[in-house]
Amino acid sequence: MTQKIYPVILSGGAGTRLWPLSRRDHPKQLIPLMGAHSPFAETLRRVDDPMFQPPVVVSNDSYRFAIVDEMASVGVSGDIVLEPEGRDSGPAILAAAALLADRDDDAIVLVLPSDHHIPDPAAFRASIAEGVAAAQSGRIVTFGIAPSHPETGYGYISTGDAIDGAAPALSVAGFIEKPATELALQLMRSGCFWNSGMFMFRAAALIDIAGKLQPKMLAAVRDAVNAVEADLSFQRLGADAFRDAPAISFDHAIMEKTDRAAVVPVSFAWSDMGTWEAVWMQSERDENGNAVLGDTVLEDVRNAYVRSEGPLTVVAGIEDVNVIVTQDAVLVAGQGATGKIKTIAARLAAEGRNEALHHRRVHRPWGWFESLQIGERFQVKRIMVKPGHKLSLQKHHHRAEHWVVVKGSAEVTVDANVTMLGENESTYIPMGAVHRLGNPGKIPVEIIEIQTGAYLGEDDIVRFSDDYGRGG
Amino acid sequence: MTQKIYPVILSGGAGTRLWPLSRRDHPKQLIPLMGAHSPFAETLRRVDDPMFQPPVVVSNDSYRFAIVDEMASVGVSGDIVLEPEGRDSGPAILAAAALLADRDDDAIVLVLPSDHHIPDPAAFRASIAEGVAAAQSGRIVTFGIAPSHPETGYGYISTGDAIDGAAPALSVAGFIEKPATELALQLMRSGCFWNSGMFMFRAAALIDIAGKLQPKMLAAVRDAVNAVEADLSFQRLGADAFRDAPAISFDHAIMEKTDRAAVVPVSFAWSDMGTWEAVWMQSERDENGNAVLGDTVLEDVRNAYVRSEGPLTVVAGIEDVNVIVTQDAVLVAGQGATGKIKTIAARLAAEGRNEALHHRRVHRPWGWFESLQIGERFQVKRIMVKPGHKLSLQKHHHRAEHWVVVKGSAEVTVDANVTMLGENESTYIPMGAVHRLGNPGKIPVEIIEIQTGAYLGEDDIVRFSDDYGRGG
Repeated sequence: MTQKIYPVILSGGAGTRLWPLSRRDHPKQLIPLMGAHSPFAETLRRVDDPMFQPPVVVSNDSYRFAIVDEMASVGVSGDIVLEPEGRDSGPAILAAAALLADRDDDAIVLVLPSDHHIPDPAAFRASIAEGVAAAQSGRIVTFGIAPSHPETGYGYISTGDAIDGAAPALSVAGFIEKPATELALQLMRSGCFWNSGMFMFRAAALIDIAGKLQPKMLAAVRDAVNAVEADLSFQRLGADAFRDAPAISFDHAIMEKTDRAAVVPVSFAWSDMGTWEAVWMQSERDENGNAVLGDTVLEDVRNAYVRSEGPLTVVAGIEDVNVIVTQDAVLVAGQGATGKIKTIAARLAAEGRNEALHHRRVHRPWGWFESLQIGERFQVKRIMVKPGHKLSLQKHHHRAEHWVVVKGSAEVTVDANVTMLGENESTYIPMGAVHRLGNPGKIPVEIIEIQTGAYLGEDDIVRFSDDYGRGG
Repeated sequence: MTQKIYPVILSGGAGTRLWPLSRRDHPKQLIPLMGAHSPFAETLRRVDDPMFQPPVVVSNDSYRFAIVDEMASVGVSGDIVLEPEGRDSGPAILAAAALLADRDDDAIVLVLPSDHHIPDPAAFRASIAEGVAAAQSGRIVTFGIAPSHPETGYGYISTGDAIDGAAPALSVAGFIEKPATELALQLMRSGCFWNSGMFMFRAAALIDIAGKLQPKMLAAVRDAVNAVEADLSFQRLGADAFRDAPAISFDHAIMEKTDRAAVVPVSFAWSDMGTWEAVWMQSERDENGNAVLGDTVLEDVRNAYVRSEGPLTVVAGIEDVNVIVTQDAVLVAGQGATGKIKTIAARLAAEGRNEALHHRRVHRPWGWFESLQIGERFQVKRIMVKPGHKLSLQKHHHRAEHWVVVKGSAEVTVDANVTMLGENESTYIPMGAVHRLGNPGKIPVEIIEIQTGAYLGEDDIVRFSDDYGRGG
């Protein structure tokens, strides 16, 4: 194979079905679900191979700094394209294809969701290689998974003839959306595949097809790509144009309409990690069928997924249950309750509850903070600043702050004074003082901040200067 | 009724079956289980009536300050007798009887466990009044509950003839220890009662009987009572003598052996709150049979008890489950898993795990503290000092401390300096400095303490002076 493949990694989804681990501002693909790395980082590693070009990541504003951190954590660089808003997968994939077609006439694009679990990257790459011939011949290739059970949560693909010169690719006879159990069983028995949501095609071929099937989407996306603006390390698609693109999934917009669809059956182990049951199935389980993670004690428990990111979690005398404990929320769900989890997470987000929006530890481009306790007229926070980073120059109208350095060395600006504070040193920021916390050192700085005052909201902040392009 | 009754309230038990709410150092009877008051406080209120003398509380060292706080919270005063160690209920009841017999020749004693839930105090007092005649006649009266179901966790009483002149008291035909379900059903159908664990007798009559049935226990208890030492507001039983008393329950030691046992059937609603299912049964339940408390969301859940003292707790698609969430531990237990909870709680306590020993908020005679976070070389605590109280004069070898006052006014001693700090003021306690935190004011003081150092254990403390009789 002489031609390198351009991976396009879609990482804009919210993953509410995996609440409370997955949060609006910190979704499942950016959290280590299995092992040390996040699914997004695992996806990056899967295409970190000579057969691929550097990836193009499509994400959005909320996740952009986490995306940068995750890419750095596995040492992979590439483009980060930001959607002004989510318009489903059709416009996202088309925008990436248009960007790459501009760059390379012959570009072959591999579209990968960022939340799939594929334990064997070599088997994955071998299957991708088997699809290249079909993609080069102008087909829009999807990868089909042989069903292990009559899953009702996936779409199915029925296949037609083999495609000449592109074995093992088959033509597509039809797509069947999430079927009821009985139909799912029939489809499984008749040799249909699960639609994995991974696609491969020549960028130019997709653009041709989109010009016929989705002219309005293509026009909007082209305008958005032409209006791309660079912002730090990000490429922002033109917002006005992109919002004109119809919000349609790639399956509906292209795959189900084109006569150029092909499917390459794959045999690697695969899960979309879409439910807690799927995560449980992919985890190592003991002789009672239990998978556990964190500080947990189980007694007389069967077929349970028990995961604690924080407090001691004891489960006793129960079966077929998912117990997920984070620093600020607990979920106890029977197997099959996924739909309810999604509904509740959406409702909590609509109510503006922190537990649906972000984790107790909130990530920022400069590091992170977590609220340790909120009292009547005070709040205690722990703040970490990465080496070489600093928070914005700011002031607060309603609160004073005490800072105690517990790790590293901090550069502290209070009005006209700039001082260095080491471990076990403290300072006081009076109400209304213009101040800044920075870390000019080589190791992370951590401080404990004690805020006092009548109003302690995050919105009591006036920014005078910010390294990360954030407004006042 | 001319004679007043002396209530003896037993409050030394640990209640591990209600973990994680009940902790070794803060057991269920001292925690608000239902409504605003703890079961112990409810027990005090139940006997806060002209028909009773002030109560005698029998407890132990670990609970003594919490006992004082609970008594103050409901405005009831009385004696607090401390057992040097738990020797089961026989010696505890006999010691209280001996103390009261010394005080009043004709004392009638009513023994009450402190963990019972009795929603109707007037009905309770009416039943107690019905037992007085039998007690005055020298009987050892127990109160029998008409079974509502064939409970296997209680003892049963079969009854004999009515006692002349003491209606509705009946003589006791026999005691049946926790029966299997089938026998329980038979006993229930044949009109047996549950043994409630509440007793009433003339103190002198019990001592007579004990002299015959348990001479060794009586001798040990008499010696322990003669050796009572006053300590602040507590009466400590003589330790060496008390430890010689055989550790036997009152049922085994006296009730099952004497021919003077009587039972007074009662009709008030009663629960010993011995399991989470019992707490659930006593709680208000919605149309799905769910009882909830705290920040909880339920969806498609039936017959569940869901209680959070802290984090948001979501339960979905499950039934017949107890979910108990505290600040530092989570329990998910199927109904009927009580035995397993008890075993796990005992194991965690044996391992020295904080989650089994005390709550995150640790109560002290001067107030409380809670650890908000423990880091690599630092710890953040929130500390409350009651008005008029102060911590011991102390120093630490391995840590420095930063204090920020977030509520009230603190008196701070650091070596030779004594200063007052108001809200939003801070101070620094260098490693090795002799220091003290006090609250001479009229409202509680709260401070945030940030400890830094290589060793941050609670045992790095040298006490020079302490208001509460605690050693170096």
